[in-house]
Amino acid sequence: MTDTTEETVGDRREGAAETFVKVSALREGTVIDHLVGGTALKVLSVLGMRFEGAVMVGLNLDSRKAGRKDIIKIERRELTPAEVARIALISPRATFSIIRDFKVVRKFTPELPTVVEGLVRCPNPSCISNANWVTTKFSVVRPDPLRVRCHYCERSLKKEEIELL
Amino acid sequence: MTDTTEETVGDRREGAAETFVKVSALREGTVIDHLVGGTALKVLSVLGMRFEGAVMVGLNLDSRKAGRKDIIKIERRELTPAEVARIALISPRATFSIIRDFKVVRKFTPELPTVVEGLVRCPNPSCISNANWVTTKFSVVRPDPLRVRCHYCERSLKKEEIELL
Repeated sequence: MTDTTEETVGDRREGAAETFVKVSALREGTVIDHLVGGTALKVLSVLGMRFEGAVMVGLNLDSRKAGRKDIIKIERRELTPAEVARIALISPRATFSIIRDFKVVRKFTPELPTVVEGLVRCPNPSCISNANWVTTKFSVVRPDPLRVRCHYCERSLKKEEIELL
Repeated sequence: MTDTTEETVGDRREGAAETFVKVSALREGTVIDHLVGGTALKVLSVLGMRFEGAVMVGLNLDSRKAGRKDIIKIERRELTPAEVARIALISPRATFSIIRDFKVVRKFTPELPTVVEGLVRCPNPSCISNANWVTTKFSVVRPDPLRVRCHYCERSLKKEEIELL
């Protein structure tokens, strides 16, 4: 119970002290909500796993809207447009909230671009986009369930076949 | 704001609603606290990433005791002795709390056994323990910082060299 960033809330009965849920409010940072259940760890890996501040991750949470969802709260970090685009490919209905001084200053659901460049690897071994001087390029055929098509070899990929670069 | 398992706490000012930290108390499950900062995702992978209930993960939290720590709360799951031993190898000072009906019914810091069998891979390619009919066996030379020694080839491994099976 000595951790400095945490705030204790919950049932204060005798003997129940250890069961308090300990949380800290996000002063500055980003909340990524409504991630498809099970995708949060992939999203963390997209973000490079280098975090200056605290990160809270909720996996497998009940959600009326989406069955099971994941949520990520990242302290002291705002995402780049490229990071947001990668996350939208993993979980197209994710919502992003930018927090400053404990307030949401911006909230958005990114629209998938019609073309994604340099984000997805083409699994076709003979595709020219796998040469290291070529930037991969896919058109988004359909956003949800996601389907993309390689600009070079025209191979079409379903969501579960997509491997991010 | 419609998610059923969550309870809203925090600042109720107008315009600040979105910044509430939303948490759910753990009714039944396990809390793994005081994990060395940065080890939580490795611990999740030890647990096989198959979770029936919700999982909350805090990464990089400030801790007076330990600098930076991670914490994991797992709903509706108690760990097997083998899982606890694996986690102790990753983070020897981790504490485990078993929660039932919102109360801590047991809290412990596992002691590392003097011998660990079937948990660590020997990196020596000519070690007999890498044959698939042999169970690996290491003696714990020192718990913190961890050092183990292979029973078969006597190779000694530092914490960062240990690869879990």
